[in-house]
Amino acid sequence: ITNTTLTLHIMLHGLWPLPQAFTSSTERYPLNPQAFYFGYGRQSAAQQGCSVLDSAFRRYFSLIFPDYTDVGVDALSNLLPVCVLDNLSVSAGQASLKAETVWGALRGDYNQYILKDMYKQRVNKSYFINKTEIEDFPRFQFRGILLDTSRHYLPVQAILKTLDAMAYSKFNVFHWHIVDDPSFPYQSSSFPDLSSKGAFHPMTHIYTQSDVRRVISHARLWGIRVLPEFDSPGHTTSWGKGQPGLLTPCYNGGTPSGTFGPVNPALPSTYQFMARLFKEVSSVFPDSYIHLGGDEVDFSCWKSNPDVRAFMQKMGFGSDFTKLEAFYMENIVNITSALNKTSIVWQDVFDYHERIPKDTVLHIWKGIPAKYQEELSRITKAGMRVLLAAPWYINHISYGQDWRNYYTVQPQNFSGTEEQKKLVIGGEVCMWGEYVDATNLSPRLWPRASAAAERLWSDEKQTSNVDKAFPRLQDFRCKLLRRGIQAEPLYVGHCKHEYQGV
Amino acid sequence: ITNTTLTLHIMLHGLWPLPQAFTSSTERYPLNPQAFYFGYGRQSAAQQGCSVLDSAFRRYFSLIFPDYTDVGVDALSNLLPVCVLDNLSVSAGQASLKAETVWGALRGDYNQYILKDMYKQRVNKSYFINKTEIEDFPRFQFRGILLDTSRHYLPVQAILKTLDAMAYSKFNVFHWHIVDDPSFPYQSSSFPDLSSKGAFHPMTHIYTQSDVRRVISHARLWGIRVLPEFDSPGHTTSWGKGQPGLLTPCYNGGTPSGTFGPVNPALPSTYQFMARLFKEVSSVFPDSYIHLGGDEVDFSCWKSNPDVRAFMQKMGFGSDFTKLEAFYMENIVNITSALNKTSIVWQDVFDYHERIPKDTVLHIWKGIPAKYQEELSRITKAGMRVLLAAPWYINHISYGQDWRNYYTVQPQNFSGTEEQKKLVIGGEVCMWGEYVDATNLSPRLWPRASAAAERLWSDEKQTSNVDKAFPRLQDFRCKLLRRGIQAEPLYVGHCKHEYQGV
Repeated sequence: ITNTTLTLHIMLHGLWPLPQAFTSSTERYPLNPQAFYFGYGRQSAAQQGCSVLDSAFRRYFSLIFPDYTDVGVDALSNLLPVCVLDNLSVSAGQASLKAETVWGALRGDYNQYILKDMYKQRVNKSYFINKTEIEDFPRFQFRGILLDTSRHYLPVQAILKTLDAMAYSKFNVFHWHIVDDPSFPYQSSSFPDLSSKGAFHPMTHIYTQSDVRRVISHARLWGIRVLPEFDSPGHTTSWGKGQPGLLTPCYNGGTPSGTFGPVNPALPSTYQFMARLFKEVSSVFPDSYIHLGGDEVDFSCWKSNPDVRAFMQKMGFGSDFTKLEAFYMENIVNITSALNKTSIVWQDVFDYHERIPKDTVLHIWKGIPAKYQEELSRITKAGMRVLLAAPWYINHISYGQDWRNYYTVQPQNFSGTEEQKKLVIGGEVCMWGEYVDATNLSPRLWPRASAAAERLWSDEKQTSNVDKAFPRLQDFRCKLLRRGIQAEPLYVGHCKHEYQGV
Repeated sequence: ITNTTLTLHIMLHGLWPLPQAFTSSTERYPLNPQAFYFGYGRQSAAQQGCSVLDSAFRRYFSLIFPDYTDVGVDALSNLLPVCVLDNLSVSAGQASLKAETVWGALRGDYNQYILKDMYKQRVNKSYFINKTEIEDFPRFQFRGILLDTSRHYLPVQAILKTLDAMAYSKFNVFHWHIVDDPSFPYQSSSFPDLSSKGAFHPMTHIYTQSDVRRVISHARLWGIRVLPEFDSPGHTTSWGKGQPGLLTPCYNGGTPSGTFGPVNPALPSTYQFMARLFKEVSSVFPDSYIHLGGDEVDFSCWKSNPDVRAFMQKMGFGSDFTKLEAFYMENIVNITSALNKTSIVWQDVFDYHERIPKDTVLHIWKGIPAKYQEELSRITKAGMRVLLAAPWYINHISYGQDWRNYYTVQPQNFSGTEEQKKLVIGGEVCMWGEYVDATNLSPRLWPRASAAAERLWSDEKQTSNVDKAFPRLQDFRCKLLRRGIQAEPLYVGHCKHEYQGV
């Protein structure tokens, strides 16, 4: 084994996801925590005062020198710079990082941190770093995690902690499935009854406006977008409690049964309510995308209701309820389009509706675990952009190393043209909440979700061997522990720093 | 619904495991935390100074009044008693509990605590308790949980926390599978090299003598016995590192291959070592039982070794290696018998050996998940006592409510006489450590293990309906959360006090 191979081997320890291009040598330089700091390059468009990078510097410093927290970052401000940030190239005396945007710098900077964290060796209380060049970029632009805060409420702290862990694996979208049948924890300023009556508890199990702002701003500093989902017309039982008249009354023979079905698509008041709600949501969540749901609409209640049936006649839908569903979704998409949002919807909408705007993203969840290729093929053939979730329903658990299944997913391995392949904008790990709350969220997500993260970030050919990935992922999992993430073990073994908190 | 039924319904909320006999009425009495205390009955053999009960009183007080921690127990010592402990019968002004032993009192007292915790209602900052009579006793004497600290190291804190949670479900045996192939974390005073060379790390991943004492004394105060397992002759790879000559050198053709197999049963030095080790272990762990393992011995290495084969000839074993295994186990059992310990061994030993002492307990692990009845039938037919683990291998996970499988196990439902049924001394939930360490131990154990706990404690007929048990177990799980146990959810829903720690 040559020195260089050995060095590369050591340096790849726990580096996850794998960078696109990476060279390193045995040449190494001392790193002095007392003199080390991040700075902006002279030609950099971003300069001090850029909150995203300023706060990243602070975070990365303590991650790079985990044993060196007493002095803190502030005390360093008068010291001479030994590290100027401009381009991710480590050589004598300085490291530099070049990026086109602050978000790239953030991710690249982060990469640089990984470098130092893993490749640095501590010898007699001093740190060393190897001479290294990295060129890196993500394979897919959308690398998401869905959390479901309706089936169980997740305290804000649990969400913030998940955002930290997401950043460590270079995820960049937090898909917040915030409301659903069981509860409506979002505290709306326009419709406060939705949470006061629809949450599990009106005070302890809600997200206030300030909670939501906190999540969004924490996510932003990690370069993570927050994609809110207000799923309708199905999955809305909890909405009905605080908004009487919104849901369809189901009938049993000729009389109302007392139960309710999906949102009532036959009433103008429904669209007035939705317009007002989505106006608020669009302003609270700054991301240009919004998720409108549209999955699993059960037609039986609509069918039972005489007013809905009369509306069907009036609209000329006959008895084809998919037309009613399409009519409803079209209205909702138009509402959000008018608010300058691009829609993401679950793939069901595609099956019912050809007239959705061309920039709508279809979210693939059917064909679990192995038939999603057909769905990708079918929908991209129509020229629509897709987001792949089906093989990454990580709430499904089984005994053993199921991360291998998440790792070996090939999102572009379906029958279709090159143009079709390009319509796959990325993927999403979905942690549905039937059996998950803050007690088990972290160990179920990590490091299993990190397997999908590498698939979405790294070069396919360089990451085709799951057995070779295994020891690197084990090291990465130990790194997560060290950073306070309660990530579960992949197999027999140990970490230098075990999780102690109980 | 009558008032009494309603009261009973309310009072059963979260009461787990179900007591054998329980009556309650709507009559209720105020409970004043400032004046409440536990005392010993005048006729009680146990009196102040009994460390087990004194410390139980302290713990139970803060569990009964979780919101009332400022004053503390000590400040109450001058107040008038309103509660005298003698017999679990709550009526005006006092509650009493009668038990034959301090351990019964501990468990009964604990039951009483559950009563108050759940049946008490807090109205305007005061507590009430219903008039209640409980008669209770366990169905099985052995209700255990196995933790595996070899495949992953568990920090002592994680073990102590598990002991707390065990007591909440009335488990009474902690089976400490302390060493195995991957690591030897037990720091032996006689053979310190076993851990200094065989542990994952000689300083951070070991259990010192003081750690072990801490675990035993914590367990004792909860009425939990600590059953140590030093599994041999298989599962001993880690032993070999610190004790050269102990394991069998495997041969490849005519020469040693450099790998090692099970303990070498052909050498007198093996038995000298084991005698010294078990003498230490017997004195460190005061329980009258000791677990000697004896499972899954692979004969291929023994077969390959010329010295072992020569020994076989000398002993007249021919080529029947089960005789060699039997010879080895007999020696080990004799060593521990001489130390006044009763042996528990995995069921494999039964298959190889008819001459084990009649008081040896066979631990049933084969026939997972549904054929263990045959094993029970076969082994009890020989008049041997058995301990059932096979259906409760809780490290095996699957999606959904698998606690239902653990709940519906019927340990005495096998073909055999009444005498045979009585030979089932209890059951054990096994959390093998391939995929488990302190990051995911608590949510994987709780409340799934509690399902087995009720099966082992409560009357079979009263607990035959798994659907009826479900809401009670949900409530109990919320109670665990309230007490700081990171117990995962059973299904969609919420607890008043969610787990916040992340």
